[in-house]
Amino acid sequence: MTQSSQLTAKILIEALPYIKQFHGKTIVIKYGGNAMIDDELKSSFARDVVLLKLVGLNPVVVHGGGPQISSTLEKLGIESSFVDGLRVTSQETVNVVEMVLGGSVNKEIVSLINSHGGKAVGLTGKDGNLIRASKIDAKEDIGFVGKVDKINPALVRHLEQDNFIPVIAPIGVGDDGETYNINADSVAGAIAAELQAEKLILMTNTPGVLDKDKQLLTGLDGKQVAGLIEDGTIVGGMMPKVECGLTAIRHGVKTAHIIDGRVDHALLLEVMTDSGVGTLIRN
Amino acid sequence: MTQSSQLTAKILIEALPYIKQFHGKTIVIKYGGNAMIDDELKSSFARDVVLLKLVGLNPVVVHGGGPQISSTLEKLGIESSFVDGLRVTSQETVNVVEMVLGGSVNKEIVSLINSHGGKAVGLTGKDGNLIRASKIDAKEDIGFVGKVDKINPALVRHLEQDNFIPVIAPIGVGDDGETYNINADSVAGAIAAELQAEKLILMTNTPGVLDKDKQLLTGLDGKQVAGLIEDGTIVGGMMPKVECGLTAIRHGVKTAHIIDGRVDHALLLEVMTDSGVGTLIRN
Amino acid sequence: MTQSSQLTAKILIEALPYIKQFHGKTIVIKYGGNAMIDDELKSSFARDVVLLKLVGLNPVVVHGGGPQISSTLEKLGIESSFVDGLRVTSQETVNVVEMVLGGSVNKEIVSLINSHGGKAVGLTGKDGNLIRASKIDAKEDIGFVGKVDKINPALVRHLEQDNFIPVIAPIGVGDDGETYNINADSVAGAIAAELQAEKLILMTNTPGVLDKDKQLLTGLDGKQVAGLIEDGTIVGGMMPKVECGLTAIRHGVKTAHIIDGRVDHALLLEVMTDSGVGTLIRN
Amino acid sequence: MTQSSQLTAKILIEALPYIKQFHGKTIVIKYGGNAMIDDELKSSFARDVVLLKLVGLNPVVVHGGGPQISSTLEKLGIESSFVDGLRVTSQETVNVVEMVLGGSVNKEIVSLINSHGGKAVGLTGKDGNLIRASKIDAKEDIGFVGKVDKINPALVRHLEQDNFIPVIAPIGVGDDGETYNINADSVAGAIAAELQAEKLILMTNTPGVLDKDKQLLTGLDGKQVAGLIEDGTIVGGMMPKVECGLTAIRHGVKTAHIIDGRVDHALLLEVMTDSGVGTLIRN
Amino acid sequence: MTQSSQLTAKILIEALPYIKQFHGKTIVIKYGGNAMIDDELKSSFARDVVLLKLVGLNPVVVHGGGPQISSTLEKLGIESSFVDGLRVTSQETVNVVEMVLGGSVNKEIVSLINSHGGKAVGLTGKDGNLIRASKIDAKEDIGFVGKVDKINPALVRHLEQDNFIPVIAPIGVGDDGETYNINADSVAGAIAAELQAEKLILMTNTPGVLDKDKQLLTGLDGKQVAGLIEDGTIVGGMMPKVECGLTAIRHGVKTAHIIDGRVDHALLLEVMTDSGVGTLIRN
Amino acid sequence: MTQSSQLTAKILIEALPYIKQFHGKTIVIKYGGNAMIDDELKSSFARDVVLLKLVGLNPVVVHGGGPQISSTLEKLGIESSFVDGLRVTSQETVNVVEMVLGGSVNKEIVSLINSHGGKAVGLTGKDGNLIRASKIDAKEDIGFVGKVDKINPALVRHLEQDNFIPVIAPIGVGDDGETYNINADSVAGAIAAELQAEKLILMTNTPGVLDKDKQLLTGLDGKQVAGLIEDGTIVGGMMPKVECGLTAIRHGVKTAHIIDGRVDHALLLEVMTDSGVGTLIRN
Repeated sequence: MTQSSQLTAKILIEALPYIKQFHGKTIVIKYGGNAMIDDELKSSFARDVVLLKLVGLNPVVVHGGGPQISSTLEKLGIESSFVDGLRVTSQETVNVVEMVLGGSVNKEIVSLINSHGGKAVGLTGKDGNLIRASKIDAKEDIGFVGKVDKINPALVRHLEQDNFIPVIAPIGVGDDGETYNINADSVAGAIAAELQAEKLILMTNTPGVLDKDKQLLTGLDGKQVAGLIEDGTIVGGMMPKVECGLTAIRHGVKTAHIIDGRVDHALLLEVMTDSGVGTLIRN
Repeated sequence: MTQSSQLTAKILIEALPYIKQFHGKTIVIKYGGNAMIDDELKSSFARDVVLLKLVGLNPVVVHGGGPQISSTLEKLGIESSFVDGLRVTSQETVNVVEMVLGGSVNKEIVSLINSHGGKAVGLTGKDGNLIRASKIDAKEDIGFVGKVDKINPALVRHLEQDNFIPVIAPIGVGDDGETYNINADSVAGAIAAELQAEKLILMTNTPGVLDKDKQLLTGLDGKQVAGLIEDGTIVGGMMPKVECGLTAIRHGVKTAHIIDGRVDHALLLEVMTDSGVGTLIRN
Repeated sequence: MTQSSQLTAKILIEALPYIKQFHGKTIVIKYGGNAMIDDELKSSFARDVVLLKLVGLNPVVVHGGGPQISSTLEKLGIESSFVDGLRVTSQETVNVVEMVLGGSVNKEIVSLINSHGGKAVGLTGKDGNLIRASKIDAKEDIGFVGKVDKINPALVRHLEQDNFIPVIAPIGVGDDGETYNINADSVAGAIAAELQAEKLILMTNTPGVLDKDKQLLTGLDGKQVAGLIEDGTIVGGMMPKVECGLTAIRHGVKTAHIIDGRVDHALLLEVMTDSGVGTLIRN
Repeated sequence: MTQSSQLTAKILIEALPYIKQFHGKTIVIKYGGNAMIDDELKSSFARDVVLLKLVGLNPVVVHGGGPQISSTLEKLGIESSFVDGLRVTSQETVNVVEMVLGGSVNKEIVSLINSHGGKAVGLTGKDGNLIRASKIDAKEDIGFVGKVDKINPALVRHLEQDNFIPVIAPIGVGDDGETYNINADSVAGAIAAELQAEKLILMTNTPGVLDKDKQLLTGLDGKQVAGLIEDGTIVGGMMPKVECGLTAIRHGVKTAHIIDGRVDHALLLEVMTDSGVGTLIRN
Repeated sequence: MTQSSQLTAKILIEALPYIKQFHGKTIVIKYGGNAMIDDELKSSFARDVVLLKLVGLNPVVVHGGGPQISSTLEKLGIESSFVDGLRVTSQETVNVVEMVLGGSVNKEIVSLINSHGGKAVGLTGKDGNLIRASKIDAKEDIGFVGKVDKINPALVRHLEQDNFIPVIAPIGVGDDGETYNINADSVAGAIAAELQAEKLILMTNTPGVLDKDKQLLTGLDGKQVAGLIEDGTIVGGMMPKVECGLTAIRHGVKTAHIIDGRVDHALLLEVMTDSGVGTLIRN
Repeated sequence: MTQSSQLTAKILIEALPYIKQFHGKTIVIKYGGNAMIDDELKSSFARDVVLLKLVGLNPVVVHGGGPQISSTLEKLGIESSFVDGLRVTSQETVNVVEMVLGGSVNKEIVSLINSHGGKAVGLTGKDGNLIRASKIDAKEDIGFVGKVDKINPALVRHLEQDNFIPVIAPIGVGDDGETYNINADSVAGAIAAELQAEKLILMTNTPGVLDKDKQLLTGLDGKQVAGLIEDGTIVGGMMPKVECGLTAIRHGVKTAHIIDGRVDHALLLEVMTDSGVGTLIRN
């Protein structure tokens, strides 16, 4: 018996309490950033998702796709203006967004997971009326940029039970059938809340929430988060992610995680080991 | 009581034997042509599908999308050459095809059905590995044009049982995860065969199979079809449709129908009344 | 395509919202009057019941049988006296009533429905202890005329689930096994209440509730009914029917309907179209 | 502890192997003769049936009713002629037969069983299309005297599973909805065969099959029965009963019993003790 | 028909209401004393348990084993001291207790029941963590003598549903996996309470609770028991049994019985006849 | 991210195909030797079993207990003689064997697994009549040494489905209820065959099957095993283990493994990694 076999056994055994604790629980993962671009990270993500499903957890993937949208809009010669960081989204633009997210990005992720042995099914918010949406509240009309009004979880629940892995593009549908582009973090948060998920995991291109000295904060509660926002430690792009996590845990999700998607197998490490790879937010 | 009420009752009652006969049976519908373009026809198609589901049948929709593909390819400045009527399909082209069929056309049909009260779920052949495909046999390599190797019916079966209406884009996935564009009639036929469907209904822009005198032939068996091909009555675009129907019934589908999708409620009339709207092919 | 095909489709489609709304719901129908005598009406009633069952509703039929009872009593030379319109019912009489209702009328309706493709099962209140009864309160003893004490719904529920159509004769059973003849409207109302039915439909030989000017009142609430009774608009034989409807809706039945059973397909028209055929009573 | 308590225990314990052996098995009982007339025998029969059901067997009761039919025909002034012992049965007569068997005799048995704590449900062959019938083959037309063409066991199976006790009147229904009076022994035999019953028990007014010396024959196989018929030992009214039993065991019923219904608790003794109360026929 | 056959039938029929009343109910039996030593009593006990199971009740057996423990300790030369009637139980002693109860006594009872046609499964409190225990409260440390902290009923529930008869040795398991010997009456009471049993039956070597004149008290309520304890009528070894019964009924068990296990078929007579064989305690 | 986290992830991911392949499959493990004595090995074994169950496999444990039996016999002053390596087993001896295996060793393993988070249930062959046995064929009568006649798998199947881990002592029961001590390897093999297990794993105190040069043979088929026996490579105590494995695979078990139980986590490594820890035998 080699040293390395024993290490293997030890590591498998150490995963035991996590498998036990999370058995049958839903884990909603916002997939995006480098983990969706780098080939090795893509493959490690797909393997992680398949393993989680196999050992009895229920991963649900929500994805973005900003770069692919921009690239296709550009190829089609459709120019975008931005207001407060949000793309002004005409009917023509939202049609492209839907086509890219639902037809291209979504199916690539489905295929990726399936090629690693999973049974993924791609959805947008139109399928089974999954995501009912309406225009976000904004100072000026920026078109078909939506916010989640209601999640209809029946389809996702059925797919979970039938052992499929739902992969969801953040497209919502309005009362009159109109299409909305919605922020993927928000969709992941709303789905996690509706499913009363065990975990909401946001994969980012950062190490997590940092303190003033750029040191990683591994665990925060709601009060601490409020303090960090007030004293200006949490700013910029991290702000909406932290708020998304807070909202989720206030609606019954056990924990929210902002993790570093640039780390190989970040997802697996976060769920199945003691080695956190980012910041955990709890009530 | 008005005359019209009695007519209403009479018509509902006449549907009785059809509802009874087809209860719990699967009806695979190839949706395309004018019925996918004209607003009134679209709405009547969606209502038909929802009604069939409600009274206990299991409609499964397979759609094409040639015009939308061409239009998007054109907008993107991608030129296509054709060999024997088939588009030479590069990697770049098949990516556009997948994006348009799976992300745009598919979701529009899903939304259309849902807005009439159904619970549709859009799929491509990648979802749940539904359609395994490989390159078609052809004299020269025309790229990612595929033929169906195997249908994995589990996902469609689950959705049927959970009262959803599957809407399927004719995209197949190869052994190495590559994407194939497949003829929608063939996909509909293969799915009908795998599901041992009661009916395969191909919606076309023609009245059905015509005889030498351009009169509609309402019912044909395999032998008669063979004769009509031999004597040159069935030619051109009707040929592959008739062959698709023949293949389906040889694999256990009860009847195949080539119907006139330009007629309002063609689908409902075909399934639920004596008034055929096209040609029926049986063994 | 003929004009009439399009009309057919239109009418089927218009039934869609009703099928959807009442799917899986129980509809209790008091069957009687001309609809039980006229051959064409009998056939149209049976077809209606079978269609309702087929499209997913759960019809439960309760029937009377006064004329047949009178005719058999007469043949047997048993004379009846009446008190306040109620037949004085001796042991000998109630035995005949039970025999006629349970053995003759009930089985004729069962056979009628079955011959139109349904799966009917005839019951009296003795089967599965369905209807527990005791003597009605009356000034003088009029024998075995009963009122419902308790409905045991288990048998009806099982038959509904197993896709049978229960057909119930209004015979109740007392604590000592004695037989009671009960008013069929009351039995229908009590069963509708116990099953928390969607609708209680009383088929009569009148157009419905009429106002002072003999015009049909198509919709009434409890308050309006009270007013109409007070001001003498509702009188005579309509009174107990209206009260039966009121009692049912007060016990949780959604709506009660007094319809004109002399109209062909009155039942179907009431349930599946906008064209009411009588008076609707709601809370 | 008294002597009698120990006897009680001993007797209960002796029933153990029978309860075990017949658990979940169907026992079809032809109920008739004195056991249907004498009050004490009626009560002991009902108790027996309820006990059998409670300890896990599935009794199915089929009954006759000749005396009640004759009495009602007489009261109605309808005269009957007989051909070969079979009543010539006009439309008017069969209507009375159906009314008496289905509405009077059947419900009395249902009520009897229910009053002893069972949950009986009365049926005729029209309910759920239970007994499909046609005219018996006879030298001359004797009207609506039928033979069983087909048993549809679904309704009886459902009632068994839902813990009800089916009580069946021997009325059959023809292809055109016509009513047939059928011999109750034959109906019991056909139902036992269709249900693949453990036992068919025919309750008679005789001690069972007797030999030439009028001694009871307690056990016979098919060959022995044939011999006894040939040598004239079995004659008269016993002949059809023995043949009914033979037919049943040839169609898969384990054993057929011709028992003495004049004995208190004959049914229970036959099923649950060593003390046979008649003749057993096996293959 | 002999006299004795009729008696047999009468006795079987008299058991009817008991079978009905206790159908599907759990009966927890503390088995011990002479009934566990005398061969005839053992056999009658096993038959009783099997019969109860067969007719639809769910017997659960808890047993003691004092004499066997003493005998084995003696053979092994392990001496015991006693404090207040409780054996001081060292680690070595409790190991022997567990071995004797779980490996010898328990399996003998299992085998006994199985040889009479039952399907028994032997358990100790370690199996499926059935009995969580800790040290009893006592003036001085007497070692591994335990009290029940918690019953985990899942295993027993599963075995009941799967038609097995659980036979339980009164061994508990502590938080650190340590083994406890627990009084079998207490274990039976705690299991009866957790399962919300219909009856708790304690089999003893006494006729039941006696009054001052040594006459059997056949029925007592809580108040009467309190009085009998206060006035010194209930003393000695009867005290803990009575208290165990009282505790059980206060936790929802319907009735508790202290019966004379020296009587043949005491268990069956108690459950299935009017002839009580001891004292019943109810709330 | 540390190096070690990545290693953790890599190892978990490498287990993926094994988890997938063996999902829902039964693995029968003969537990014995050092792995049952050394505290660290015991703990690692328990963890392995619990992990296998958690990730979806169904481990079934069969254990021996020779040393504990010898020690208790010695303490009780019972001497044993041996014939051909088999203990001559008197009634007194077999009673001790049953008590030690079923009451002491079995419960210790149950408790061990439960303390690591599993839900184990201990059984002997008497529970649910699991192991029917009779005397082994031998030259002279060596008493209650048995061989397996029949496995009744119902109890084990139920426990598997209800998520318990069966732990089985190799005690069989004869037709007359007599107790047999059976070789634990044989019991494991018979149970594996009856359950059509995926794997039979025999834990030994050897590295596996060695060749003439004392090098481990990692994989053998039936033919190779035959050759090795013939040429005298396989001898002594390894012989019966190899034959037990051969018998199992001939009865439908996929693979049999003779592994080195002295290796930490030998079980886990065998099932979930490429690193075999012994010899695999396949057809």
